[in-house]
Amino acid sequence: MTSTEIAAFWGSDRTLSIHHPMLLHEFGNTAFVIRDKDKVIAYLFGFFSQTGKTGYVHLIGVRQDYQGQGLGKQLYDHFTQLAKQQGCSKLKAITTPGNHHSIFFHRKIGMNPVGEKNEQGIEVVKNYSGPGQDRVVFEKQL
Amino acid sequence: MTSTEIAAFWGSDRTLSIHHPMLLHEFGNTAFVIRDKDKVIAYLFGFFSQTGKTGYVHLIGVRQDYQGQGLGKQLYDHFTQLAKQQGCSKLKAITTPGNHHSIFFHRKIGMNPVGEKNEQGIEVVKNYSGPGQDRVVFEKQL
Repeated sequence: MTSTEIAAFWGSDRTLSIHHPMLLHEFGNTAFVIRDKDKVIAYLFGFFSQTGKTGYVHLIGVRQDYQGQGLGKQLYDHFTQLAKQQGCSKLKAITTPGNHHSIFFHRKIGMNPVGEKNEQGIEVVKNYSGPGQDRVVFEKQL
Repeated sequence: MTSTEIAAFWGSDRTLSIHHPMLLHEFGNTAFVIRDKDKVIAYLFGFFSQTGKTGYVHLIGVRQDYQGQGLGKQLYDHFTQLAKQQGCSKLKAITTPGNHHSIFFHRKIGMNPVGEKNEQGIEVVKNYSGPGQDRVVFEKQL
């Protein structure tokens, strides 16, 4: 995608670098879109963990003028079904401690953060992404 | 890793954002390091494709003052053996058309670009990473 297209979903292009082409080329069977006619209005990039029975949701984006209609949950539900069929025992997703929108969304669909509360009261896994790089790590048992 | 640590391997922190924690947390059984005493001097992050019998090398980094000693090739060889054991029929890696160091390295270890020549004579796969985002896509049959 272009950075303009990314911004139509995320409000900025800050997530551009984690839209890595491997998500389509190597994990294309867990990449899904919802279209309105020809236009992609929501998408999910996921994969199955190589080291555990885990369905991992890497990115879920909904075009800004289509948010609030349940499209994100619809994609999650679809991936969840697939993960169950693959024998996964849990779902997993991560976000940054400052991304309140993402934290709210994941809690709403029943994913819970593991780890311990940081100074702001947000449950994080310390140094998850390297020294000083805490992350909110959501899990849901299937 | 921190951006300072990344720069000790890559000369800058331009690759920081593709050192995603999933490479360790979800694909840890194809993440390898070489150490000199306690210090990591080279590493490889790979995974097996979910959609084909492909061993995919995502990142290979050698600390700058240890380059030119064959550590990168040693890591590739290790991953190659593992990929063969897993029944993979090919290896794959990608880079950007402007990364001459990476193109030289991959050619030297016997990986060949697929695709067609661009205006600079470099074989690329057009739009591999989105509109206008050509990539050099290396493959090696196993």
